[in-house]
Formats: sequence, structure tokens, C-alpha cells
Amino acid sequence: MLIAVDAMGGDNAPHEICKGAVIACRNHPDLEIALVGKEPLVREQLEGVEAGLLKRLHLVHAEDAIAMDESPVVAIRKKKDASLRIAMEMVHSREAQGCVSCGNTGAIVAGGVLVVGRIPGIERPGLGMPLPALNRTSMLIDVGATVRAKPENLFQFALMGQIYMRHIFGVKEPEIALLSNGEEEIKGDEVILSAREMIKGAKLNFKGYVEGKDIPFGTADLVVCDGFTGNVLLKFMEGFGEAVYALLKEEMGNRLLPKMGMVFMLPMIKELWTRFDYERYGGTPLLGVNGAVIKAHGRSRATAVANAIRVAHDFVEKKGVELIREELLEGGKL
Amino acid sequence: MLIAVDAMGGDNAPHEICKGAVIACRNHPDLEIALVGKEPLVREQLEGVEAGLLKRLHLVHAEDAIAMDESPVVAIRKKKDASLRIAMEMVHSREAQGCVSCGNTGAIVAGGVLVVGRIPGIERPGLGMPLPALNRTSMLIDVGATVRAKPENLFQFALMGQIYMRHIFGVKEPEIALLSNGEEEIKGDEVILSAREMIKGAKLNFKGYVEGKDIPFGTADLVVCDGFTGNVLLKFMEGFGEAVYALLKEEMGNRLLPKMGMVFMLPMIKELWTRFDYERYGGTPLLGVNGAVIKAHGRSRATAVANAIRVAHDFVEKKGVELIREELLEGGKL
Repeated sequence: MLIAVDAMGGDNAPHEICKGAVIACRNHPDLEIALVGKEPLVREQLEGVEAGLLKRLHLVHAEDAIAMDESPVVAIRKKKDASLRIAMEMVHSREAQGCVSCGNTGAIVAGGVLVVGRIPGIERPGLGMPLPALNRTSMLIDVGATVRAKPENLFQFALMGQIYMRHIFGVKEPEIALLSNGEEEIKGDEVILSAREMIKGAKLNFKGYVEGKDIPFGTADLVVCDGFTGNVLLKFMEGFGEAVYALLKEEMGNRLLPKMGMVFMLPMIKELWTRFDYERYGGTPLLGVNGAVIKAHGRSRATAVANAIRVAHDFVEKKGVELIREELLEGGKL
Repeated sequence: MLIAVDAMGGDNAPHEICKGAVIACRNHPDLEIALVGKEPLVREQLEGVEAGLLKRLHLVHAEDAIAMDESPVVAIRKKKDASLRIAMEMVHSREAQGCVSCGNTGAIVAGGVLVVGRIPGIERPGLGMPLPALNRTSMLIDVGATVRAKPENLFQFALMGQIYMRHIFGVKEPEIALLSNGEEEIKGDEVILSAREMIKGAKLNFKGYVEGKDIPFGTADLVVCDGFTGNVLLKFMEGFGEAVYALLKEEMGNRLLPKMGMVFMLPMIKELWTRFDYERYGGTPLLGVNGAVIKAHGRSRATAVANAIRVAHDFVEKKGVELIREELLEGGKL
């Protein structure tokens, strides 16, 4: 199995990306990785890696890269030599079964649609983010691929998300919920209402609406929303954690008692942190495109990169794309 | 000044509502309160209150009440004897200058529009929620009055919110931001884009887009969004706090060291809690209607109720409705 990795995407490229690729190769004996980026730079990162692994790490040169602040569609269309674009072309041509990038999210989505291509019948892809919650890992889909979704898009997110949770996360009958502004059926707007009726009609394990407050409790295995809401929520969560940390530091200052208390609590807080750590998940699948396209956080370090590659590996191994294609088309759900 | 208080709304009605009204009367010598609810029940709550205060607490009988799970518009239209409806009619007839309720949010919004009435030129009201943030108190508008907003609605939320922050919160030049899925101008959808151009054109102190992660840091004095997104965010925040608390309790279990640590940290955590405590704000103004309509949290206890009444008092005293009407109409902004 060959996974193309965008070696130039993200805040810690290429060093941590290459390090992550090495870890992933070590963990999965059946895995080969194409490191796409400036060859001399990438080659440098691989110095000292054992020969056995090197054989499975292929260097694919890319002259260019897409920056975090570039206009995604323009960059994907015009920068034909960008590492992300080349990695995605390898998926399109079936040379690689999937690709991983820590780069510009918009460019990953645009490349997924324009370069890799969509699964027939899927109008818009959805980014599914596994979130740590109190009772289980709950996937939020979409967190930013499709800013404003139509009912059909939300319905397809539900279908693809439940396939992902069932086959990749191993949840038997994933509980699906639709994010709304209240639990009662009168809540929501026309888009959400139509999506609800479509999901209801598809004989899925549908729980109806959930509210924002239900997400941290893990009320469902899959929470469906449009990309705008999902993106705002995800970033809010990130910001909230950072703000609480900054506040704790500020309040703690030089006060002895709280500091002592913190020392006693540290092991517990570290455990808690692990439960909320995105590095553990490492990857957000772009569902609805013709390959395992996995986005990792821009700040990912080696462990997170290796985990994102593992997600791509599992997605290919468990035939994620084929499952979506078959279930949707043969099940007559599209 | 007379404020009508819905004595039957919320989880702790009528006891905590009446207690809160007594506190508010004690704090504001110029305040009179109409307690609207089942008279015998309300009268019972006032036993033992000093005669001087009792003179300023008027009992207005209401045979009926609107429950938390009732359909808002139907309830407001049909339940002519409901405490909330009677309180709002007192505002409509100018008998009272404002009203406060801890009841059904949808019914408060519906009553604001259908009973109290909108300020001429305002198409949809907005619920503005003051949020604790790292650097300042930042108001999020709308948190649920207008599920899907048009650009004009978002623009009016910005105008009304900045008047509120300036005159009620005393912020000189409130910084306004529009919530989007990224900071770059290419983000957002057509609605957000049009709203941005309208706000830009109005010579406000406009900072452009903010993302979800900026909210906890208090990047702006006012963050404008539609009621769906605001509602999801607000409830997520509430749920997140509750989930972290539950998790801490669970992890702590019977482990001695973390428990000792907690004891040392308690004073600091209490201080932190105060910063994030909604009881301190107590009230969410429904901006755009012809009176000081203040919604308080359904779980409010006496302190929060008293604070919500204070918010109504300040709004009336500082002529909130008149300011919105004048600035909007005379400024030619509508």
C-alpha cells in the first residue's frame, strides 16, 4: 500500500512530517510512503534512517508548496508543482491509495474535489473530526469542507460518517444525530428539517436533534452539521482550551498554595489531557472523495503525523472508499 | 420605574424569582416591580419582607404560565392569561418600562415581537449574551432569537449591539467583529459577506472576521453571528463546562493526591469560576423590541434574577430603546 505524504505542509514541515512517516513505516510493515516535497530537503531529514525502512520511503520531488494563507482554489488550480497537488494527483492516478497533509485545509478540500475527484453521486465532501467526549469518541461532520450545506449534503454526511464510524472505528450501530438549536422537532430551519426527514427515511440509527451542550457528553457516535457551524465549534473548542490554560497560568502567578496543589494534581491533569489530545487521533478524513484523503492539524508533530498516516492506512485497508461507493449506490440511497 | 417580572418562569419559580425581586428593590430605590403570577403563590413568597419594600412590589395575577417545552408562538398567541404574556402586555401598554423572565426563550422572543412589538425598522430582534473572555466581557449576538439571519439582520445586530456595549457596558468605541470560518476575507458565505460590506459601510469600529478560537480570548467587544450558530456555541460552552466537571470528579475518584491538590487550588478555582459565572451577568437583552426585555437563564437563582432586573433597570435608565431608535433612524442607517 502506498500513501503519498505532503512533506511541505504544516507548521513543522518538513522535519516532523518526515519523522512521522518513518514512525508510520516502522508501525506498518505493509506500508510504503511517497514523501512529496523538495527532494534535497526531504532527503536531509532521512539521514540515519535504517536501510530497511528507507526502501519503503520514496522521494517524489515537488518544486513548489501551498502556503497556509493562500486562496485554496486558486493555489490548487495554478500551482501544478505544489507538493499537495502532486500528492493528490498520485491518488487520482491510483499510483497511491491515499494522501496525508498538514497543510492549508481549504486547499486539501479543493484538491480533494478538483484533483482526486468525488465519489460518483456525492455532491460535496465532508471533513469528519473525531472528538473526545465523555462517553465515547464522537465524530463531528462537517468541520469545514462545505460551508453552507444543503439537506442532501447533510444527508450524505450522515451516510458517509456512519460508514466511517462502523468500519474504521468499529462501532456496531453508530448513533447518528443532527445538530440543531434545540431538541424539539420544531427547532432548526428548513435545511435541517429536510435533512432530518431524509435521514429518518434511510433506516439509519437516527436519534434526532442534539444541541451544542450534548456534544461534550458524547450523546451520539456521529453529529452532523454544516461546515460553518462545525468549523466555528471546533475552533472555539481549541481556543477555549488555550484561554483556560492562559488564565490558569495568570491566576496561579506566584501563589504558593495553588502551585503546590497543581503539582499534586499533575498526573491526573496529564491523563485528562491525553483524553482531549488531538495528536491521538491525528487525522480528519475528507469523506466523499475517491481515495483516503486525510487532513492533519497544521501544528502536528511526528506522533500526530504518524497517527494521520495510520488513519489513511486503515481507511485503505478497510476499503473506506469502496464501502461508501457500494453502500450508497447499491443501497439505492443516492 | 416599573419592571414587570414573570414570577412563574424558570426552574426555580416562583420562590427564587420573588427573592431576586426583593433583592433588586433593595438595591435600586427608584425601582418598582410588578410580580406577575398566581397571586396566592407569589404573596406567600413575600411573607416577612419589610413594609417599605412591599410598597414597591406589586402583585399582578396571572392564571396561567408557559412551560419550558411549549411551542413558543402558539403559547404566546393562545395563552392570554400566561404570566409572561401579561408581563409583556404591560410593556406594550407602557405601564411597565421593561420585563424580565427566566422562562421559555422562544416564548420570550415570540412575545417580544408579537406582544411588545419591534422598534420601527428592525426586522428581527437579537439576543445579546455577555460572555466572559480573557481580556474583557464580549457580547455574542444573536444567541437564538433569529435562527437564520439575513445580511440586514446581522447588520442590525451589529448596530444594536454596539449601542448596548457603549451605553450599558460603558465601552467607548466597541470593537465589532463578524463570526466566520476563517479570518481571511474570502471566508464566509454570501450572507456573511454581504453583512460584512454593510457593517464596513456604516463607519463602525469594525475589525472584520473572527474565528471560533478568538471568542474565549475576547478579541472583540461584540461578536455578531446568526442565532443558530450563537445558540450552538453558547450551549456547547455550557455543556463543555459540565462535562469537564463530571470528568474531573470521575478521575479524582478516591485518589488522595489529586484531592489534596484540589483543596489547595480551591480558592483559585473559585475565583476563576466567578469570572465564568453567568449569574454575575444575569441577563440577556432581547435587542430590537420596544422595551427592556431581559431573558435570564432558566436555572437562575435569586442573585441571577436580581442581576437580570438590574440589567433591565440600567437599560431603561440609560434609555436603551430610545438610543437604538434614534441612532438607527436619525443616523439614516435603516
